Amino acid sequence: MKRRTTWVAVALAGVFTAAAAPALERQEIRVPDLEGLHTLTCDLHMHTVFSDGNVWPTWRVEEAWRDGLDAIALTDHIEYQPKKDDIPTRHMRPGDLARGSGRQYDVIVIRGAEITKAVPPGHFNALFVTNIDALAHDDVTACLEAARAQGCYVFWNHPGWRVKPGDPVILPLHAELQSKGLFQGLEIYNGGDLYTNAWPWALERNLTLLGNSDTHVPMDPPQPRNENHRTMTLVFARERTAEGIREALLARRTVVWCGPLLAGRKEMLDPFVRACIVLAPPHHADKKSVWVHMRNVSDVPFTLRKTGGAGPDSIRLPAGKIVLLKIAAAPGTTAELAYVAENACTALGEPLALSWSVKAP
Amino acid sequence: MKRRTTWVAVALAGVFTAAAAPALERQEIRVPDLEGLHTLTCDLHMHTVFSDGNVWPTWRVEEAWRDGLDAIALTDHIEYQPKKDDIPTRHMRPGDLARGSGRQYDVIVIRGAEITKAVPPGHFNALFVTNIDALAHDDVTACLEAARAQGCYVFWNHPGWRVKPGDPVILPLHAELQSKGLFQGLEIYNGGDLYTNAWPWALERNLTLLGNSDTHVPMDPPQPRNENHRTMTLVFARERTAEGIREALLARRTVVWCGPLLAGRKEMLDPFVRACIVLAPPHHADKKSVWVHMRNVSDVPFTLRKTGGAGPDSIRLPAGKIVLLKIAAAPGTTAELAYVAENACTALGEPLALSWSVKAP
Amino acid sequence: MKRRTTWVAVALAGVFTAAAAPALERQEIRVPDLEGLHTLTCDLHMHTVFSDGNVWPTWRVEEAWRDGLDAIALTDHIEYQPKKDDIPTRHMRPGDLARGSGRQYDVIVIRGAEITKAVPPGHFNALFVTNIDALAHDDVTACLEAARAQGCYVFWNHPGWRVKPGDPVILPLHAELQSKGLFQGLEIYNGGDLYTNAWPWALERNLTLLGNSDTHVPMDPPQPRNENHRTMTLVFARERTAEGIREALLARRTVVWCGPLLAGRKEMLDPFVRACIVLAPPHHADKKSVWVHMRNVSDVPFTLRKTGGAGPDSIRLPAGKIVLLKIAAAPGTTAELAYVAENACTALGEPLALSWSVKAP
Amino acid sequence: MKRRTTWVAVALAGVFTAAAAPALERQEIRVPDLEGLHTLTCDLHMHTVFSDGNVWPTWRVEEAWRDGLDAIALTDHIEYQPKKDDIPTRHMRPGDLARGSGRQYDVIVIRGAEITKAVPPGHFNALFVTNIDALAHDDVTACLEAARAQGCYVFWNHPGWRVKPGDPVILPLHAELQSKGLFQGLEIYNGGDLYTNAWPWALERNLTLLGNSDTHVPMDPPQPRNENHRTMTLVFARERTAEGIREALLARRTVVWCGPLLAGRKEMLDPFVRACIVLAPPHHADKKSVWVHMRNVSDVPFTLRKTGGAGPDSIRLPAGKIVLLKIAAAPGTTAELAYVAENACTALGEPLALSWSVKAP
Repeated sequence: MKRRTTWVAVALAGVFTAAAAPALERQEIRVPDLEGLHTLTCDLHMHTVFSDGNVWPTWRVEEAWRDGLDAIALTDHIEYQPKKDDIPTRHMRPGDLARGSGRQYDVIVIRGAEITKAVPPGHFNALFVTNIDALAHDDVTACLEAARAQGCYVFWNHPGWRVKPGDPVILPLHAELQSKGLFQGLEIYNGGDLYTNAWPWALERNLTLLGNSDTHVPMDPPQPRNENHRTMTLVFARERTAEGIREALLARRTVVWCGPLLAGRKEMLDPFVRACIVLAPPHHADKKSVWVHMRNVSDVPFTLRKTGGAGPDSIRLPAGKIVLLKIAAAPGTTAELAYVAENACTALGEPLALSWSVKAP
Repeated sequence: MKRRTTWVAVALAGVFTAAAAPALERQEIRVPDLEGLHTLTCDLHMHTVFSDGNVWPTWRVEEAWRDGLDAIALTDHIEYQPKKDDIPTRHMRPGDLARGSGRQYDVIVIRGAEITKAVPPGHFNALFVTNIDALAHDDVTACLEAARAQGCYVFWNHPGWRVKPGDPVILPLHAELQSKGLFQGLEIYNGGDLYTNAWPWALERNLTLLGNSDTHVPMDPPQPRNENHRTMTLVFARERTAEGIREALLARRTVVWCGPLLAGRKEMLDPFVRACIVLAPPHHADKKSVWVHMRNVSDVPFTLRKTGGAGPDSIRLPAGKIVLLKIAAAPGTTAELAYVAENACTALGEPLALSWSVKAP
Repeated sequence: MKRRTTWVAVALAGVFTAAAAPALERQEIRVPDLEGLHTLTCDLHMHTVFSDGNVWPTWRVEEAWRDGLDAIALTDHIEYQPKKDDIPTRHMRPGDLARGSGRQYDVIVIRGAEITKAVPPGHFNALFVTNIDALAHDDVTACLEAARAQGCYVFWNHPGWRVKPGDPVILPLHAELQSKGLFQGLEIYNGGDLYTNAWPWALERNLTLLGNSDTHVPMDPPQPRNENHRTMTLVFARERTAEGIREALLARRTVVWCGPLLAGRKEMLDPFVRACIVLAPPHHADKKSVWVHMRNVSDVPFTLRKTGGAGPDSIRLPAGKIVLLKIAAAPGTTAELAYVAENACTALGEPLALSWSVKAP
Repeated sequence: MKRRTTWVAVALAGVFTAAAAPALERQEIRVPDLEGLHTLTCDLHMHTVFSDGNVWPTWRVEEAWRDGLDAIALTDHIEYQPKKDDIPTRHMRPGDLARGSGRQYDVIVIRGAEITKAVPPGHFNALFVTNIDALAHDDVTACLEAARAQGCYVFWNHPGWRVKPGDPVILPLHAELQSKGLFQGLEIYNGGDLYTNAWPWALERNLTLLGNSDTHVPMDPPQPRNENHRTMTLVFARERTAEGIREALLARRTVVWCGPLLAGRKEMLDPFVRACIVLAPPHHADKKSVWVHMRNVSDVPFTLRKTGGAGPDSIRLPAGKIVLLKIAAAPGTTAELAYVAENACTALGEPLALSWSVKAP
């Protein structure tokens, strides 16, 4: 070209008579499936105008579709309905409205409700609920028992929220409710907040780890920069159905994704991250080095830090990108690469270990 | 630097314990004021869950603030309330809810209503309404007379919408309503649509030109690329108040902004565009040429096409950017630049003429 | 979340001691392969400081790798070396420098040279050149015969460039050179410019269609918005090698990509576009309609316009996105969709026709 | 609008015949001036093909202009010329080439040279050099004395670079050179790297603080996200000239800007940050609170953390944005706000303190 140019200029041709196309577009989230398991992108905590949210239930489906989600749960508050002067309480209504949209958009809509008690004990989400009115008890134990009677999957939301600095997060009441099996999961990430005190306890008590947006406002459309994905739970399900999600939640097959961060049990996090990062065989070599491409096939940006062996001290591997590694390796030898993924933790402060072997031709 | 680097990497330091800051941010729209007149960014047509929109009225204020608007009008349909099974009709309620937010965010909230008749005659927005129930008549003339009785400012919305291709847009009924002074403005742009048949008629009948989003869904947050501003009416007002807007609308001091396009009467468009584009004096010269900087101080991207004189054949001047012009001019002479702004029209197919003189030192 | 949050905030943790990671990243261009053919992304025309470009030859490889290209040709001018006071002429040097980098980055580097005559006849690129000095003749026919003697692939660059408006682009000399088989291809797109007069002639004379950046300055890094890909030639090759590219060029298996636009012979454009756009089977149906997802698996944004049958009037299908179509179809019937791809042309003004059948369950 | 739309669609109208406009655009960097002082954006360390860089000198001017810079220094290595087989050494040549472009683009081009010794003592930049050949001595003291003889301004580059972990950065030789007045400044930021050991020493020895890109490759064009500005030195100069910069450097009137971070002496950092952040008077009040807008008029993103008084715990204030603060204040009282700017430090670990008073009406 004679100098750099851009196609924006053509936007003006014919411009005063043009009408633009109307449709929303879905941006698929790139997360690899595992063997025999679908990696489902799920946001299982959000609000509508039927409690203290700002949007109509069907819009939650449209924005979830646009954002590349497989499944959402609408979880309006049972006990908190600040708009009820305008929208009389009908607990089952948001789910009724959203499910029709869900079928059209092929987004799984799970009916939920947020049991909203003062702190402590705080809030719990009941999923797969069939009669929300039956959960409306003053006593939290009674609520959770009613949820169990309906076969709900229940998790404790944002534990630590509104707890005074220094005060304990996990109280005897929480331990008791958990011991009785009244909840099976724990939301370690809520929006941009991590509940550090609750994570170790969740692992100790063998609870499912969840992360959700808990959005009350409209979600911004997805940006090309991966930092803008909403907080979500990756659910590794045998089938892409509501029942598939329930089975996977009960089996604790989840990884939580918040910003650039992944948090999950080693048995799920390890195969997932290994599926995200693909090291190609060397494409070039000389007497001292080989050149290999490392590719991130996912939308999760990774930052790797070397813990031993060959390779650069750190590797920044943005969503969907490829980096070139020059590895010291004489012809015929095998170089070992040992890293941790700094943004992927199996527990607080425990980044996932990764290793590869590179065989020089 | 040893090679190019980016600060994104530091995002991971301390990452598993960080909580993010919560607030929305306002992105000011850069539009220059004119002498004695404030350039107010106004979106005077939008919907909430109180008719067929998807968001709560207060959210309309928050997103308008975020988008850099000075004023909005909530204009829910009077005759069309598809959510009334859930939200019983209370026409004044959206305005009541939004005005409190408007004071907190310093966004002017104008109470409006959309008179929603079949096509023809179509829809009309009444602004500054004080009793919406009083507008609920079957007959459009009766509606508009009731609006006049309340001192409303009325404009015809998206004329041409749902008119069959080939059918006339302007019918005797419209001419009659206009002749009676029952509406004073016309929405030539609605969202991304231009109503080409109505624009000439609006000029002929001396109507105010308006452009609005007519949004039913949440607005996406503003993007750094100016193409993403919502369609709006720039209102040149003596004061930044609802009354100031009314006076300016009645005086037809508006320019419509849709994507990269401006449409307005020459008496407003000309001074506005001249305020947007600033040509600096030459900063360098040799025996044949001078070098000058042309700066776009606004968020409206301009595309200029030469119609005579010196200067390049075309100039692309994105929002807020500066371009360097090399102008042929011998020392001591004055070069004349003559252009049209292809994206700024005083009428359909009539781009605004612009000219500058450049004096070579 | 309690309100919307962003992970950018954590960037400040530990910030005054952090050092950022250094590597470039490659952004793969998503273009589907065809049966038995690799779709190679090629930019076969560019300059370095060894003629009138602004960058060092090895940087051309690095930026090509970053931009997701498979192959480049360095084509410095033979007759125009404005920097020779600083960089003495050594025609083979840019290729020598770049090929080492090419092996490390796995980018195919084709050695080329631009035969640079006054207009007419203009400029020609010789690829796969082995001795550039041998091409340095004053007479263009002698140049091109020398190129043929080396087994070069030759194409005419930016035909029409610097031709006065109204003057003919294709002269008897061009026809004569082409008749002698002295060039086999024609660059219909160069940077952002289309050479409309030459395109029909290229088809008539059965020349290969090419499009290239002809960049003299550094290429901007690829942006998430597809409009920012450089102009390139998609080459459908049996193998990912320089020889594979030569064979495909001789066989005219190319599609040119400039901004949102594709231009190519029907026999290549048709299968390529059909591979880009994937229509899924219906995922939902009612008594009148089915819902289907249409997915663009490529980085080429498409705009479809209906020419008959069911489906929306137009479909905007950005790079890598999915849109939802509601198709009128009673249970058990088959709906036919007929569109043209407005951004993909087999000849000037001849958009590619596309059709799909949708079977309602 | 009937649904959300976008103007991108019009890009296709007339598309196969359009040619795009060619010019580069300058994106001004928003940094407020101080009383009597221009805030000049300066990158005083970079390379071209005349040493180990990858671009031609004039391109450094064009990209600096595009990036919104006021001044650059070309500082090719004296002792390291890896391209000299192709580009014979002519030390003054890059400056000669760039200065003509500088006049056309109105970018101040300062002639410099990098004195490139092994570590220790490392590298030094001499600015305002008039005879680079005269600096070519083996002995660093002799080099620096020759620079002083020419009236150069000299700073120590990236101190700590290639120093082994644990080894001291500041050696007796550095102290000796500094004591003799052979250098006056110190580069605490180089690209994305901070030299933590050298910063305290620079303050102790009363050296000017600098930060520069040290770029060897082409600079990416500026992005709408402020994190992408290059590392630079903000120089507070009495006039926008090379002499103005020299005087300001000698007077230590600088603030270094790297990513979101500012580092500078309190006497410059304090007025600069106070000029960046503008707190408007309250626009609304009730019996308990006032609402005020805080505006960032600069391109530096700020993160404020409360240290006392009223106001939110933290305030994220992106480049050019406005946030809304609700401040507890009864009518007639004055609320005090006390914060630190976490991204603006007067010394390592010492964020700048800021305070405001808000008077409730």
